[in-house]
Amino acid sequence: MATLKLPSTVPSPSEDCEQLRKAFAGWGTNEDLIIQILAHRNGAQRKKIQNTYSETYGEDLLKDLDSELSSDFQRVVLLWTLESAERDAYLVNEATKKLTASNWVIMEVACTRSSEQLLCVRKAYHAKYKKSMEEDIAHHTSGDFRKLLVPLVSAFRYEGNEVNMSLAKSEAKTFHQKICDKAYNDDEVIRILATRSKSQLNATFNHYNDQFGNAITKDLKADPEDEYLKFVRSIIKCLTVPEKYYEKVLRLAINKLGTDERALTRVVVTRAEVDLQRIAEEYQRRNSVPLDRAVAGDTSGDYEKMLLALMGHGDA
Amino acid sequence: MATLKLPSTVPSPSEDCEQLRKAFAGWGTNEDLIIQILAHRNGAQRKKIQNTYSETYGEDLLKDLDSELSSDFQRVVLLWTLESAERDAYLVNEATKKLTASNWVIMEVACTRSSEQLLCVRKAYHAKYKKSMEEDIAHHTSGDFRKLLVPLVSAFRYEGNEVNMSLAKSEAKTFHQKICDKAYNDDEVIRILATRSKSQLNATFNHYNDQFGNAITKDLKADPEDEYLKFVRSIIKCLTVPEKYYEKVLRLAINKLGTDERALTRVVVTRAEVDLQRIAEEYQRRNSVPLDRAVAGDTSGDYEKMLLALMGHGDA
Repeated sequence: MATLKLPSTVPSPSEDCEQLRKAFAGWGTNEDLIIQILAHRNGAQRKKIQNTYSETYGEDLLKDLDSELSSDFQRVVLLWTLESAERDAYLVNEATKKLTASNWVIMEVACTRSSEQLLCVRKAYHAKYKKSMEEDIAHHTSGDFRKLLVPLVSAFRYEGNEVNMSLAKSEAKTFHQKICDKAYNDDEVIRILATRSKSQLNATFNHYNDQFGNAITKDLKADPEDEYLKFVRSIIKCLTVPEKYYEKVLRLAINKLGTDERALTRVVVTRAEVDLQRIAEEYQRRNSVPLDRAVAGDTSGDYEKMLLALMGHGDA
Repeated sequence: MATLKLPSTVPSPSEDCEQLRKAFAGWGTNEDLIIQILAHRNGAQRKKIQNTYSETYGEDLLKDLDSELSSDFQRVVLLWTLESAERDAYLVNEATKKLTASNWVIMEVACTRSSEQLLCVRKAYHAKYKKSMEEDIAHHTSGDFRKLLVPLVSAFRYEGNEVNMSLAKSEAKTFHQKICDKAYNDDEVIRILATRSKSQLNATFNHYNDQFGNAITKDLKADPEDEYLKFVRSIIKCLTVPEKYYEKVLRLAINKLGTDERALTRVVVTRAEVDLQRIAEEYQRRNSVPLDRAVAGDTSGDYEKMLLALMGHGDA
């Protein structure tokens, strides 16, 4: 469930653009007005605002936001304003760059989006970077992480609910065998994770649990500090219980000595229109603190206001 | 250039359906009438005929064709009648089955279709088989072939003409190094083949030729009988000069002791709406015999008539 709140009557894109122009005008910037508008429009509406803005003023809304705003607030507004496929393409591209490299961000996009959405991200990547997403990822990652990431981002998983139980059994056995042999990066493990439908994988992991007495993620904790094993566990969580994966990302981001604003921003902007409500429930359940209170306690100013607005605070 | 010939005025789908019904009626089947209609309709028109047929008669045209026709003629008509993405999905599915297994067919579909077409094939595969194409391929292939095939079918290559020359140089060097080391199945080799755009690969292979004095396909002939090396050479041909690849498939199919009808049928039906004209030119150039004459010399009856009609013979 999304947390995004829309006003009961949404102003026309040209009205919104006019207001945004006002927010940018003169000395200083009216941040509250920017939040009031953009944090309460859905993807299609934000896209229309962008188009109308460039038609009306001959300028790029994203560039104007970029020059008017700064630091964490700037990043959250810019990322939010982007349409979701373009945003994911941007995040993945950033994650292939040296200074902002992150296998985790790439994995997140690959494993938590629907097949059709992931395809849209790949198309947006072509349009924006004149390259394919998988070629950049393949080029800029290496070793076992690459062996996982390239098929994960290239997958077009079947999304029906049909489950082949005998396949689930045989592949649960394969997982168990490979885990016993500590062959965590075996081609078969990667094949199954990267190609099977989420329903099928779920059945496989359930069978694993029933048959071998432990959740597969538990058996994948042989060495809790091993980065690759952590990664495989996260893949499994993203594919089957994404809200739990995101709860943990938020928990670590907030509990850090010094908040991890990049992670916090990423989760809020990418999930506000999807399942941030469920993630917040999971957070409350796990931490005994409401997510919005935790976020408010760890952030401040316009950045805080924008995050809370996206989390459904206040009137739209 | 396509070889498909359309009539100057195309009958309506219901007229075509009526004629097809007539061709099926009574004892025997009017094969000439079937050819006259179906071999002269493009993909969209054939799709409409299928839909109209099922709306009008409550029956499946493909099933009726299947029961009316037999052997090679049946296969060519059925495959041709399918819309191209559905046909490719069918061919790939067949190629993952034990008795009709073929890494070559899978590779052909992966490497000669446009990115958008390959995507349509993957969608058609979901719809028809309730699974993803890559999961079946990953499940039913193995070893080095699998290492190549899964990323090839999963690729969504960028299709612009932009070329990064320094990248072409460095990746030509990578190829050369790996070939010198006989590391033909190296991850880097596979990464480059499976992810780069066709324009980029073309630049890389041109640079290879200029820099190292041989075409890369020549240097990949260390052991001419090695199946894996043959496969890699074919991938390179499919990605850069598909008409040469197809010319060779036809040449081998026709020159065999006993024609290889499956290969002949596959090339004709999949390329008649695409580039069969260019393939025929290439054939004539390489064999000093026109392709249609070679095909006519090697086939007979309705099968021959259908192939020649698809190759542009006679009036539409």
